[in-house]
Amino acid sequence: MTYRAIQWTNGVLRLLDQRLLPHTVAYIDYVDYREVAEAIKVMVVRGAPAIGITAAYGMALAAQQSHSSSAEGLRADLGTAAAVLRQARPTAVNLFWALERVLARVANPDWVTADAVRAEVLAEAHAIYELEKQSNFKIGQNALPLVPQGVPDAPTRILHHCNTGPLATGEYGTALRVITAAHEAGKYVHAYVDETRPRLQGARLTAWELQQMGVPHTVIVDGAAAHVMRTVGIALCVVGCDRVAANGDTANKIGTYMLALAARAHGIPFYVVGPTSTIDMAVAGGDDIQIEARPAREVTHIRECQITPDGVQVANPAFDITPARYITAIITEKGVVYPPFTENLARL
Amino acid sequence: MTYRAIQWTNGVLRLLDQRLLPHTVAYIDYVDYREVAEAIKVMVVRGAPAIGITAAYGMALAAQQSHSSSAEGLRADLGTAAAVLRQARPTAVNLFWALERVLARVANPDWVTADAVRAEVLAEAHAIYELEKQSNFKIGQNALPLVPQGVPDAPTRILHHCNTGPLATGEYGTALRVITAAHEAGKYVHAYVDETRPRLQGARLTAWELQQMGVPHTVIVDGAAAHVMRTVGIALCVVGCDRVAANGDTANKIGTYMLALAARAHGIPFYVVGPTSTIDMAVAGGDDIQIEARPAREVTHIRECQITPDGVQVANPAFDITPARYITAIITEKGVVYPPFTENLARL
Repeated sequence: MTYRAIQWTNGVLRLLDQRLLPHTVAYIDYVDYREVAEAIKVMVVRGAPAIGITAAYGMALAAQQSHSSSAEGLRADLGTAAAVLRQARPTAVNLFWALERVLARVANPDWVTADAVRAEVLAEAHAIYELEKQSNFKIGQNALPLVPQGVPDAPTRILHHCNTGPLATGEYGTALRVITAAHEAGKYVHAYVDETRPRLQGARLTAWELQQMGVPHTVIVDGAAAHVMRTVGIALCVVGCDRVAANGDTANKIGTYMLALAARAHGIPFYVVGPTSTIDMAVAGGDDIQIEARPAREVTHIRECQITPDGVQVANPAFDITPARYITAIITEKGVVYPPFTENLARL
Repeated sequence: MTYRAIQWTNGVLRLLDQRLLPHTVAYIDYVDYREVAEAIKVMVVRGAPAIGITAAYGMALAAQQSHSSSAEGLRADLGTAAAVLRQARPTAVNLFWALERVLARVANPDWVTADAVRAEVLAEAHAIYELEKQSNFKIGQNALPLVPQGVPDAPTRILHHCNTGPLATGEYGTALRVITAAHEAGKYVHAYVDETRPRLQGARLTAWELQQMGVPHTVIVDGAAAHVMRTVGIALCVVGCDRVAANGDTANKIGTYMLALAARAHGIPFYVVGPTSTIDMAVAGGDDIQIEARPAREVTHIRECQITPDGVQVANPAFDITPARYITAIITEKGVVYPPFTENLARL
């Protein structure tokens, strides 16, 4: 791959600035965890797994930044840093999951010096990156039997929402990995890429990633998905997830729920795809998941161009909840989970 | 009203350039029917009823432009002009309907001089404008009983797609008239305005028109409609129509069908609103309606800003078909038509 969304080199966290894609590939270097929290907030980096990995490296920066010479002092500083990073975005559970993993590891009383704790924080961040990478790869393998073979003249058409590729996850991807793994396996696939307003992650990022990987694709506006299902035909829908509740209800990018309803009306399988780090067993159902309201400007402006009249009122929910009953299965690194989700997710 | 989409003054057709709204209110004057055809094509004017009215005035310009001194010669020139105007856009039936009305009127052998025919063309264009205006007004009256009386703290929330206001119809509007008539009648309503990608008629035009008329409203991205239905609650959906088939299948702006599916899933009434000039009894069902494919640039660019990578493949269907079974009723100037549509539309 010619790009890396998240990279750690010699004490510096380098993020690909996803706000500038697809026209500019530029990286920003971070040495301050507070700036990493801000980078997550303003979406230099986005995608639930990528946010988790980035937060873990943010903790590694915080460990570097701390002047504490004692393990206890450093643990306190890391607690402060985790509290700051935790505020960056509210919906994706991977952020909290990654911070908890780091904090749990450094809480181990075996590490009695500050430097030992520092090394553990960085090792955990690397471990989380590697874990997500391996998870993504297994997700692709697990999904493969669900994707029809296709032929050159009649490829398997797969509808995809938002961005769930390497940019969103570190490497490989989740929902997008279903498509790229099938492509690599010699199945003939054609991706229909929802542009995904307001931030256009589909049009800007997914189209760009599929170009990099040479996977055939067509961009459509979000409102065209049902029309494409009815007229061209879609074999399956794949979407990522920002948080899956214990009952299978899924928080994902705004527009996911409408897509699920359209898929149901057309009898099209609707798959939620993500690592088990995105499953939050502490949350019973979707109504308990906090939905982030993002700035109106994301709707009123596209880059610097204002599209609405001055002073217009806007609602900009960043995510929606797809009730579990509209989800055919949840594809994870541990296998494909079918309903009843409450029992089968608990069994994971 | 402080603006007029279509205006005829002393042999000049003046169109409000809707491509520049909401930031610039500018008019273009036309004296050549070929330029009017181009204006329809590039969407200086849009909206099924407005296209019909504009085409009729385009015929009035063609009559002015013709050098024929005989009624027969002028009729031939008008036939040529109608053929040009007919090519402007393929989906909205009002274009063909208006041209047919003008041609039928001038075919009357009572008019034996070229000037008499010229006068008839202009009279018919004015008549079509007036007919649509009256139709729109009656639509608002007919719809009124379908809109629950809200209260200030809990207004009746109405979801609206694309633009169907005075800009799209000449005066009053169709689906938007349902909202503004209820507002004028003292019902407390709040419009949820779908931005309507790719051309953003909701965000640009409907939000602007509702501001002009003082009707409370909130702009959302298209993908947020189902989320708003599930969380905030929507009392009814109203959409316009570009062509209604004899069985009730409705061609309307891309995204309408997804909205209908979401409304059905939530048990929300879904009303198609339009004058009977939009009903095409010559077309049995939606599959026989030609769906216009518009330029990729409408998706890849927003104004001058490119959002997709270079060279991306795009599908840009301008309309979709909502099957009649998802439509609660069709609101026309002659009354509210319920299923079975085949029988009840024929009865109109």
